[in-house]
Amino acid sequence: MSTSVIILAAGKGTRMRSNLPKVLQPLAGRPLLGHVIETAKKLNAENIITIFGHAGNLVQQAFSHENIQWVEQKEQLGTGHAVKVTLPVLPTEGVSLILSGDVPCINPTTLEKLLSVSRETGIGLVTLTLDDATGYGRIVRHNNKIQAIVEHKDASDEQRQIKEINTGIYCVNNAKLHEWLPKISNENAQGEYYLTDIVAMAIEDGLEVASVEPELAFEVEGVNDRIQLAALEREFQRYQAQQLMKQGVHLIDPQRFDLRGELLVGQDVCIDINVIIEGHCEFGNNVQIGAGCIIKNTKIAAGTVVKPYSIFEDANVGENTAIGPFARLRPGTHLANEVHIGNFVEVKNSNIGLGSKANHFTYLGDAEVGAGSNIGAGTITCNYDGANKFKTIIGDHAFIGSNSSLVAPVVIANGATVGAGSTITRDVAENSLAVERSKQFSKENYQRPEKVNK
Amino acid sequence: MSTSVIILAAGKGTRMRSNLPKVLQPLAGRPLLGHVIETAKKLNAENIITIFGHAGNLVQQAFSHENIQWVEQKEQLGTGHAVKVTLPVLPTEGVSLILSGDVPCINPTTLEKLLSVSRETGIGLVTLTLDDATGYGRIVRHNNKIQAIVEHKDASDEQRQIKEINTGIYCVNNAKLHEWLPKISNENAQGEYYLTDIVAMAIEDGLEVASVEPELAFEVEGVNDRIQLAALEREFQRYQAQQLMKQGVHLIDPQRFDLRGELLVGQDVCIDINVIIEGHCEFGNNVQIGAGCIIKNTKIAAGTVVKPYSIFEDANVGENTAIGPFARLRPGTHLANEVHIGNFVEVKNSNIGLGSKANHFTYLGDAEVGAGSNIGAGTITCNYDGANKFKTIIGDHAFIGSNSSLVAPVVIANGATVGAGSTITRDVAENSLAVERSKQFSKENYQRPEKVNK
Amino acid sequence: MSTSVIILAAGKGTRMRSNLPKVLQPLAGRPLLGHVIETAKKLNAENIITIFGHAGNLVQQAFSHENIQWVEQKEQLGTGHAVKVTLPVLPTEGVSLILSGDVPCINPTTLEKLLSVSRETGIGLVTLTLDDATGYGRIVRHNNKIQAIVEHKDASDEQRQIKEINTGIYCVNNAKLHEWLPKISNENAQGEYYLTDIVAMAIEDGLEVASVEPELAFEVEGVNDRIQLAALEREFQRYQAQQLMKQGVHLIDPQRFDLRGELLVGQDVCIDINVIIEGHCEFGNNVQIGAGCIIKNTKIAAGTVVKPYSIFEDANVGENTAIGPFARLRPGTHLANEVHIGNFVEVKNSNIGLGSKANHFTYLGDAEVGAGSNIGAGTITCNYDGANKFKTIIGDHAFIGSNSSLVAPVVIANGATVGAGSTITRDVAENSLAVERSKQFSKENYQRPEKVNK
Repeated sequence: MSTSVIILAAGKGTRMRSNLPKVLQPLAGRPLLGHVIETAKKLNAENIITIFGHAGNLVQQAFSHENIQWVEQKEQLGTGHAVKVTLPVLPTEGVSLILSGDVPCINPTTLEKLLSVSRETGIGLVTLTLDDATGYGRIVRHNNKIQAIVEHKDASDEQRQIKEINTGIYCVNNAKLHEWLPKISNENAQGEYYLTDIVAMAIEDGLEVASVEPELAFEVEGVNDRIQLAALEREFQRYQAQQLMKQGVHLIDPQRFDLRGELLVGQDVCIDINVIIEGHCEFGNNVQIGAGCIIKNTKIAAGTVVKPYSIFEDANVGENTAIGPFARLRPGTHLANEVHIGNFVEVKNSNIGLGSKANHFTYLGDAEVGAGSNIGAGTITCNYDGANKFKTIIGDHAFIGSNSSLVAPVVIANGATVGAGSTITRDVAENSLAVERSKQFSKENYQRPEKVNK
Repeated sequence: MSTSVIILAAGKGTRMRSNLPKVLQPLAGRPLLGHVIETAKKLNAENIITIFGHAGNLVQQAFSHENIQWVEQKEQLGTGHAVKVTLPVLPTEGVSLILSGDVPCINPTTLEKLLSVSRETGIGLVTLTLDDATGYGRIVRHNNKIQAIVEHKDASDEQRQIKEINTGIYCVNNAKLHEWLPKISNENAQGEYYLTDIVAMAIEDGLEVASVEPELAFEVEGVNDRIQLAALEREFQRYQAQQLMKQGVHLIDPQRFDLRGELLVGQDVCIDINVIIEGHCEFGNNVQIGAGCIIKNTKIAAGTVVKPYSIFEDANVGENTAIGPFARLRPGTHLANEVHIGNFVEVKNSNIGLGSKANHFTYLGDAEVGAGSNIGAGTITCNYDGANKFKTIIGDHAFIGSNSSLVAPVVIANGATVGAGSTITRDVAENSLAVERSKQFSKENYQRPEKVNK
Repeated sequence: MSTSVIILAAGKGTRMRSNLPKVLQPLAGRPLLGHVIETAKKLNAENIITIFGHAGNLVQQAFSHENIQWVEQKEQLGTGHAVKVTLPVLPTEGVSLILSGDVPCINPTTLEKLLSVSRETGIGLVTLTLDDATGYGRIVRHNNKIQAIVEHKDASDEQRQIKEINTGIYCVNNAKLHEWLPKISNENAQGEYYLTDIVAMAIEDGLEVASVEPELAFEVEGVNDRIQLAALEREFQRYQAQQLMKQGVHLIDPQRFDLRGELLVGQDVCIDINVIIEGHCEFGNNVQIGAGCIIKNTKIAAGTVVKPYSIFEDANVGENTAIGPFARLRPGTHLANEVHIGNFVEVKNSNIGLGSKANHFTYLGDAEVGAGSNIGAGTITCNYDGANKFKTIIGDHAFIGSNSSLVAPVVIANGATVGAGSTITRDVAENSLAVERSKQFSKENYQRPEKVNK
């Protein structure tokens, strides 16, 4: 049976106090709605129907690369109304999962269970058991079967003792949605169309309402303000940290770990405090990430040690390299095996060959460095002439003296040596020495300037 | 009615194990007593009377810029004695708030409420309801009216069930203080004069004792040792983080945020983990502060992105600039709009014009840089000759080659270019090229040094 | 009476999902087993007998410097079997403490108490009272005397109410171990030899079984997976932080402090957030460590201020120095009093004399710097010729201009000055000026390169 996913994403989120619509607020580096869309994709939903409202163009732009059917809810007349506006595009066969764009952490496993139990009954919902359910709609059961959902304000004293609540996540037969939604009325105190009413209709029709509970409560937590957003961010991070630890990652402090994307790991990966992982990263066996590192869209091969406060983006790092502390690998950096990149070194759009070293204060931009070369402290590839960028080619087993300026385009051939402090503007031949330097001049009994009293 | 604030600040704080008197221990970057003085000022107190004792000269020095009446308590004979020593300077009219120098987080709103309820009765106190009140003086009430304060050790079993406690914060008519304080006796087990006794005197005089509770318990928490200090620091930081989130700040982890001063924010400010804000800072709309940044006394205009591990102090940053990672803006840095300051760049006492860039390994000290200029990697303004500091002037649209040394005082005029690796000691004219460089020398088949076995 | 310590360290720890045997997993930078061995040494144990099994050679290698008797348990047949294999090397006199290699935080004080109570009875154990004891072996007492240890699965409903549990830490007379261990049977559901059985034997023999409880529950927590390891790491760090605060250290956030080794402190040491201390460190009075610093095996004398994000290893720092931010002191760095090391400065194997300064972008490697010298920004000691390392000697009151390259071996004598941007290859005499520089060349109306459209 084909599955549609309907996502309610029309709310403004006034309490966020933001110019951004609520569903675009980021959690773990991805918009709230993006999490729900990812979940829908993991379920192989046939179609993803997203209801937009406030700042709809911003929302659509943010997901223009996704295959989504957008339906506008012009007025905010309640959840029932929101789903009703999807009817013109909703298939009449199959089932729909109804999700909220501001409930980002719902687990695909929970939804698969919901799909499974709902297929038998035609309708199901995710419920949650809370110690303190004050304020929530209660699930009233008789002989374990759902009889009604009663809002807190309408609940009797006895019903208020119920700890099982409605989370607002449903799975419903599309045929039933087409039948029920037009019948929802707004004749209530708020004058809104409530989606909850379909549960009453189902029971009236003699259907059993199926239900599942999520494994973890945070799966069904919604976000209404910055404090809730920050709290859910932490719960989500804690969950991700636990998943990694179960895979064998040694996290020195799971409370000080942020994964904003996806991390694939080998065995015995160790991650020290305050590391941030962004985008898609892969770490091989025995990779060690030092405190405070920020690694984005980077593969790091086995045995590499990244020392503290190193920042990588769109890089590719070989095996058994040693990098940092205070190293920065910018996009397009490829390090071969056994490369050493030391402190205060910046590499951008460059390939560094097997075993080469740049240990201190170096900028390698648009460079090709061969194997076994040593780049002295303070070396700078002058890759930019103010208008265009050029390449610096350094061969194998070259030795670049400290404080050298390599003015690109320039080639330092295999085995060549550059004297310290040289500005190299012409190519250097294999195994030759190139120096740009004047004669050292000396003046005896030099009188240094004295402090002027101003 | 005029308000005096009396602050008890004579304690030594032996349990802090410090050379500093307790009230000078910092919380969120400000001495404990400083927090109380700030609160007194927010209440527009007519006079602030501070009772000092241990290391009184240190305490007075620390607040020499404040308008405070200092009264010495030569012997530590109890809280009643402490307040009594203020009588010679205490007005006979008006009311006094009696605060503790080691209870730093009391909220002005709570004190305003206390003032309000106490003005009617002549005496009031701040009480707190605790789940476990063991050890504290209990508030005994009858028909909801305060009957007595009973110390824990003197309390009956029934009284020990009371959860409402005395916090030691009072508001009293000055006339009453002049009447009651001389009558307090030290005839008790400890031989101390207890301020609590004035409550009994008030009740004996037939006065009703008013009371208020603070909104948050940490407002009345005192500090006696380093563990309590650290705990209160965290509660205070959590409170500040919540206030900022309520204003719409996106804090990625409120548990890893430190505000040691004051932060004014526009809309959609985002602050990543482990940021420290010190002194007085202002961030415009959409400002983003990367992980681990430390920002002190700095204004950052709208749209600016500060990348991780950047440190600013006494700087002024324009709109839509991009700074960091690993950038340091030292005092006197003014960045115009759209400036780029990259990694491992230090700027001090310098103005950088619209859209200028210094992207790597640069020291700009005592420099004036115009608009649209590009400062190459490794450029250093040699502003210090060992005795005096001089200015480097760089015009608009200048291009400074990498690894240049600009020996101040020196002027690089508009549109000028400096060749890479040059040491520039003389002014460079508009639109001219300046280079300081020798001929590149080459030696073929150069034999590099070999490893000597030691 | 002589004390043996028997440590069970044969488990594989499958749930860690690691190539490393469990007892080698690090807690606070030291293998789990290392913590137990340290504890044994603090108790002045006569002999430390460690039972190894899985990956035993790795385990033995890791502690090859320790005086340990290794006994192999070839098959994992239970705790009783593990201790039985030690009998051939276990003295027949004296007592043994039986500890677990994966219970790293047991406090020597608790074990001393256990030794003390067990010496009288011949057998004693460490028990713990838990709110929820589900799953643990319960301590059954009658008239306060231990009657039995009943495993959870064998316990009656009444026994399951018991909150006192067996922690698996014992002290037993060696003579009794020699008597009892051969008698333990594996006729039970699991077919294992349980050490617990000796308690029943003791009671049968009419001995009283002594017991003590640890001061803190985490002392007896074991580690079976990465989640437990991370949780115990935090508990241990929290404990260490509390101990330091009790000594008077001002920790800005004890939850963001990591001590992986030992820290000795003077008075009024202040440590900001996210600092990591490794190995053996000593900080004098009033030392301040800024946020994010990582300090390893380093002594820092009184009054020194270390600014944020500085990394020290095997260094020695004098009084009243100012270091950082972003400074790196590598092994062999000795800083005299009042030295200033600024941002993006790296020092390795160097001595820096009284009051000398290197404030920006400098690499000092294999250098000797006298007193009162100033090392300009961007100065690099070229200590490596690609094969060998050489020393740079700088005298007192020298002034090294910015962006200088000092090609070692080279001597800059007292009072000498090096001009900015110079590459110095020959020694510089006292009070002389050395400059390596060409004539500044100028070209008017220079046409800069233009952007090429590719």
